[in-house]
Order: sequence, then C-alpha cells, then structure tokens
Amino acid sequence: MASRTPDNVPPKRRRGRPPRDPNASEARQRLVRSGLIHLTERGYSSVGIDEILAHADVPKGGFYHYFSGKEQFGLALIEAYHAYFIEMLDSALADTSMSPLSRLKAFTRNAEAGMARHEFRRGCLIGNLGQEMAALPEVFRARLVEIFQDWQERTASCLRSARDSGEIDPRQAPDALAAFFWIGWEGAVLRAKLERHGQPLRLFADTFFNLVQAPKE
Amino acid sequence: MASRTPDNVPPKRRRGRPPRDPNASEARQRLVRSGLIHLTERGYSSVGIDEILAHADVPKGGFYHYFSGKEQFGLALIEAYHAYFIEMLDSALADTSMSPLSRLKAFTRNAEAGMARHEFRRGCLIGNLGQEMAALPEVFRARLVEIFQDWQERTASCLRSARDSGEIDPRQAPDALAAFFWIGWEGAVLRAKLERHGQPLRLFADTFFNLVQAPKE
Repeated sequence: MASRTPDNVPPKRRRGRPPRDPNASEARQRLVRSGLIHLTERGYSSVGIDEILAHADVPKGGFYHYFSGKEQFGLALIEAYHAYFIEMLDSALADTSMSPLSRLKAFTRNAEAGMARHEFRRGCLIGNLGQEMAALPEVFRARLVEIFQDWQERTASCLRSARDSGEIDPRQAPDALAAFFWIGWEGAVLRAKLERHGQPLRLFADTFFNLVQAPKE
Repeated sequence: MASRTPDNVPPKRRRGRPPRDPNASEARQRLVRSGLIHLTERGYSSVGIDEILAHADVPKGGFYHYFSGKEQFGLALIEAYHAYFIEMLDSALADTSMSPLSRLKAFTRNAEAGMARHEFRRGCLIGNLGQEMAALPEVFRARLVEIFQDWQERTASCLRSARDSGEIDPRQAPDALAAFFWIGWEGAVLRAKLERHGQPLRLFADTFFNLVQAPKE
C-alpha cells in the first residue's frame, strides 16, 4: 500500500478538552479503538494492519506517525485495554453500597453484559494475547503477566475484605483465591466466545461464589 | 510450492501391525504429529501448511492426498488430539487404586508433567482453537464444544463417585463442578503457557481440590 500523509485523516471533533493537535490525536484514538475491536475478536496473528487502517479510516502514513510497527501498536493496545479494564473492575470493587463478595459478583455480571453487547464475539485482549504468546513478540510476555498480577491484586484486596467481614471461609487465602479466580475467569471468557453464550461465565462465577462462601452452619 | 507426489516420502517402518500401505499411512501420521506440535504451540492462524510439511518431511502432493486443505487437516488434528487426550484422562480416572478425587488430581499432575516436558510451550489444542475460533472455519465450533462436553462428562462421573464416597461436599453438583473444572483448567493451561511455568496449573488444581473437599469437621 502506498504511504499517505496523516493530513488525509478526516477531522472529527469529539467531546472533552481539545488536544493540542486534535486531528492527529483523534487519528491515534481511532487506530487504538479499531485495534481493540479487531484484536479482542480475532487476536493478534490473524489481524493485519491494513484492516485496522481501513476500519479506522487512517492512511498508512498516519499509522507510522504514531507507531513504529505492529509490535509497538500491540503494546499500545495492551496499555489501552488495561486502562479501560481496571476502570471497569475498580468501579465494581469500589462500590461500598454492596458487600465485598457482591462487588466481585457485580464485576462478573458487568463483564458478561459487556460480552453480550457484542454477541460474545469479543473476548479479553490480555487473555487472547496470552494464548497467542508463542506467536507474538517476546516483549509482550512480561507485560501480560504483570497485568494479570495487577488485576489479581485488586481482586485479592476485595477478597480480604470479604474474609474480614465473614463472607468467605476464613481458611481460604485471599491471594490464592484471587489468582484462582483470574485463571478461571479467563477460561470462562474463552468458552463464552467459543459457545457464543454467557452460560460459561455465569456457571464459573456462580460456582466460584458458591464454593468460597463461608459455611452456613 | 510445486506439487510433488507422495512417493517422495522416505519410507520409515514403525512398531505394530503394518498398515496396508505403510508409506502412505506413515506420511499421514507424520503430518498429524507435526500439525499437533505446531498447533498446540502456536495455534491455527499463525502456522502455515508449508511449515508442517517441512517438519513432517512430506511433499505438498502427499498432504493433498490425505486432506482437501487446511480446514480438513484442522478437523483431523482435533480428532487426533481428542483421542490422545481421552486416553490420558481415562487412564488417570480409571485407576481405582486411588480415591476418585485423587484420580482427578493425578490427571492434573500428569498434564502438568506433560507441559513441563515441552517447557510449557505447548498448550491444549482444543483450548487454543477455542480461543482462535473467530478466525477459524465455523465448522470447528460445534466439534470443539462437543469435545469439552465429553471431557466434562468423564470428569463429572469421577466427581459423582467422589461425592458418593463422601470426598466432596454433598451440596455440590458434580456436573456443574466438572464444567467449572474444565473452564478453569483451560484458563490455567493458558496462563502456564504465558508464564512458561507450571505454577498456574498447580495453583488452580490445589485451590479447586481444596474448595470442593467435604468439610473436615
């Protein structure tokens, strides 16, 4: 494809404080948005930059203005997804109007609703890339591991509150339970995409909450 | 690549009853073996037929003698992996020298040892393909779902025995637990590949067995 200049990008103003160079910044945003749509659906290996450019309506020259190539673009998508995701996770886990375990349950329901909005076609970018790791630039690996670790720590903090308030069995270690939850939840997202249905997410969440709850007797 | 004839395949006799056309049959076996190695490591989308042919030392004409294309080859790999896998699963679950829950635990340890032998580079073919489903021939989907269902049923049968012998909490439904186990176990295989380490498998298994056990009091 011939290189075009970034000023081919159609200017579209959006909400919020205007950036210094609104067209340029918006082109980058459109690229990231398009990348997230394509990669959460089909992963990294089977998506070409040209598809992302076409969907984002950004010429190739515009892409290379922001990213040195697919690898650096992939890393930018990882950061953008992580930022979006912790906002979703924290908004559920910070809702003190609910009990700690109910907050984590609310996260699972929100995530299920999010997948349902796209007919269970789009999964978790971090899980997708983790599964594809053998075919990806090696530099992705450490960052993906760190991000799972980050999500686990936020979840462990919630589970510690659940243990302290007597919601979960006090013999369970919150850190191990949080790691267990994330390992399994990514498996559930995978199955939900495969089956194009929310049932695996629901089954995993319900069984998890059922198993960790403090004994009623 | 130019088409070559299957009789370029170097004849290698193997153990067991010789098939009617040993060279031809062995070429197919080598293709399947090579396909399993490549696809358990890197998935379907990022592996080309040429790599598989080169590794299997089979010419392209030989490939098309057995398979109409990558899609039919993929389906054959799914069946070969499923057959290999249920043998491994059943050999653990049928070992009545151990308690039912110990049999499932033995499966998880065997699977971990299997991944360790390949430095956690190769995952589960069914899980890999499930994750890639959006980029795969649609005909794969139903078969992948059926195969998970099959593994779950074998596991549910083991968990029913565990419940009947008082090993697991009688309030837990074996079918739901088996589905939960497989959803989570595939997540654990994904993480083990990402981290190149058995710890996620161990953590998932230990926490699962810990959570489902009948209360000691």
